[in-house]
Amino acid sequence: MTAFWDSLYSGAARNIKPSPIRDMLQSCRKPGMISFAGGMPDPAIFPVEQFAEAASILRTEGRDILQYGATEGYAPLKDFLASWCAPRLGRKVDSDEMLITSGSIQGADLMTMATLNPGEYVITEAPTFLGVTTDMYNHGAKFLCVPCDEEGMLVDRLPALIEGARSEGKTVKFIYTIATFQNPCGATMSLERRKALVRIAREYGVAIFEDDPYGYVRFDGEHLPTLFSLDGGEHVIYAGSFSKILAPGTRVGWCCGDRDLIRKMVVFKQGVDTCTSVVAQALVYQYAKLGHLDAFLPKIIGHYRAKRDVMMESFAEYLPAGEARYTKPEGGFFFWLETPNIPVDALFDQAIARNVAVVKGVPFYPNGDGGDHHCRVCFTFASADAIREGVKRLGDAMRELL
Amino acid sequence: MTAFWDSLYSGAARNIKPSPIRDMLQSCRKPGMISFAGGMPDPAIFPVEQFAEAASILRTEGRDILQYGATEGYAPLKDFLASWCAPRLGRKVDSDEMLITSGSIQGADLMTMATLNPGEYVITEAPTFLGVTTDMYNHGAKFLCVPCDEEGMLVDRLPALIEGARSEGKTVKFIYTIATFQNPCGATMSLERRKALVRIAREYGVAIFEDDPYGYVRFDGEHLPTLFSLDGGEHVIYAGSFSKILAPGTRVGWCCGDRDLIRKMVVFKQGVDTCTSVVAQALVYQYAKLGHLDAFLPKIIGHYRAKRDVMMESFAEYLPAGEARYTKPEGGFFFWLETPNIPVDALFDQAIARNVAVVKGVPFYPNGDGGDHHCRVCFTFASADAIREGVKRLGDAMRELL
Repeated sequence: MTAFWDSLYSGAARNIKPSPIRDMLQSCRKPGMISFAGGMPDPAIFPVEQFAEAASILRTEGRDILQYGATEGYAPLKDFLASWCAPRLGRKVDSDEMLITSGSIQGADLMTMATLNPGEYVITEAPTFLGVTTDMYNHGAKFLCVPCDEEGMLVDRLPALIEGARSEGKTVKFIYTIATFQNPCGATMSLERRKALVRIAREYGVAIFEDDPYGYVRFDGEHLPTLFSLDGGEHVIYAGSFSKILAPGTRVGWCCGDRDLIRKMVVFKQGVDTCTSVVAQALVYQYAKLGHLDAFLPKIIGHYRAKRDVMMESFAEYLPAGEARYTKPEGGFFFWLETPNIPVDALFDQAIARNVAVVKGVPFYPNGDGGDHHCRVCFTFASADAIREGVKRLGDAMRELL
Repeated sequence: MTAFWDSLYSGAARNIKPSPIRDMLQSCRKPGMISFAGGMPDPAIFPVEQFAEAASILRTEGRDILQYGATEGYAPLKDFLASWCAPRLGRKVDSDEMLITSGSIQGADLMTMATLNPGEYVITEAPTFLGVTTDMYNHGAKFLCVPCDEEGMLVDRLPALIEGARSEGKTVKFIYTIATFQNPCGATMSLERRKALVRIAREYGVAIFEDDPYGYVRFDGEHLPTLFSLDGGEHVIYAGSFSKILAPGTRVGWCCGDRDLIRKMVVFKQGVDTCTSVVAQALVYQYAKLGHLDAFLPKIIGHYRAKRDVMMESFAEYLPAGEARYTKPEGGFFFWLETPNIPVDALFDQAIARNVAVVKGVPFYPNGDGGDHHCRVCFTFASADAIREGVKRLGDAMRELL
């Protein structure tokens, strides 16, 4: 039947790019594999008991939460989030400035559907989260990319990029950024650059999509203001998620931004899934209302800080001296490991042969033009012992190739 | 800020059509309103206690179901469904022929993304479910429509439609049909027409999307074979849903069809929401595994059969004689009421003035070329007393206009 179905795929669908995430997540589950691949939380830290306790709401509010919900989201959860996020967003957003999404990735997907014509540009960091850029690619996006250093995106490159595209008659629709604990490179954009980025967006009339799934997971130092808070939400749309601060299996995230844009995103969401699972939203709400979200966050942070430190120590102990470059992330889930003398394809194969998984760097470059001596190493999923053993194997793999 | 954001919306996004469903659903919640509008289940029949009981799985399997899930769906739920649906699908589908979706509407959305280029045709019944066609419209679909009578789509019109489109160089991508208890017209396609439809799809190399959210909710008579079972799933993709047989707030549906198509839909789903809420899927699975799905279905059917009968009796008693046409649906959620001498716009206004809501017929015609003397009347949501009172008010509204 393949020939029949093949004849039906559209031009776009014929060339769609599957996201490597799925395979990464599956590799984590392979028996015997030590996985530093998927950006997965540690199931050992899931608040199973507290989340199960929240299921009381299925009894008390069952007739409401088993019904179709508003596309915009479950009102009690939105009310809770508006207050809970106010410190991070710089103000309490109105209800019509917020949309509950099925994971924060849906926010980027709906933003793309609402604003992007095929062939138009999105500006991203390079490297950046491949799940979002793969989806944008499948919607027809082209990419302009800005390198990162330890202070995040080199924002002073933006004016020339935007002007260059415009001089060729091209449209730049928005800038996609993970300003805090960037995925994959772990960098956090400095305050100075944040201010400059917002200024450039205003000056050039380009929107910013601030993807912030890791922002609350800070190990060291002080929180920096979000782009949304610096801008007041005029040019910035902000996406948050419960995946890293509670659990990804809920698939509950949120978006805040301009009310007209939110309304357009709601229109697309009606056709995509009508609304995010009300059952899941209600469970998350009840969990948060019972105080578990706030009570648990310090535990998550402490747990992952310790793992980051174990991985740093293991890098120092087991990786061949001078052959690996990395910086210490102040939060989030990832190290971005550079191996200047070892191509990542060879390293990956040697690592897999030793039952340790990382993610190759190339797919994190939307235009495929970098990352061939880089890999992303997630420190949150594996246990401390597995981290030590896995880094040891990674060191062996590197030595094999030097 | 509207001007800034306005400048960002793409050609498509500028002209997107919001689905009236959202407003319908909200009208159901307005105090004092008797709603026959949204196709909502009766919350009184939700198995609240049994669903809450299923929450035990959050404790026993919490570390698994709070993690990211496979995009294809929660394996235990897929295994359960493959067996449970086998009688309706004519065979037990393989795991890679099935995808769990966030409501059955996501199946149609992903099918559209995977196969349709803007400007290509989808063939639908007219009238048909406006939620799906609005989403298809927003993805750039054009529509060719086939009228329905009491035996469903007039399938003998299809060859000329397809040939006509092809002779103009146009592409017909698939036929979208709700063959059983059609929304909104309540008709069920006869066996003879089902066989003819599958034959035509094969002959012309056009796929069929069989949307079957109501199929299990049959009040009278015997089940007819699904298009999927007649075809073996070679040209047909089938979409089912828990919305009507359990509860829509779960947002869990499923799609079965060609494995290559399923794989393409999975690729788009990765970017849309990564996976359907694992928490919601696990709760649905546990509910079904505890036997509640099978135990409860007869109760749902009996409950809605009684409501359908109350509405039929009320139509006979309260609507002006000879001024309303309708047929008795053998299942599903809807009457499709024709008022040959009363335009629906006037009827709707008079009805709303009397605090009773229906849905106007026009949006159910994808090309807007019908339904101006029709409305959809849902009998499942309101109580029996509210049905009688609401139909009485509708009769008063009609008399006002004659």
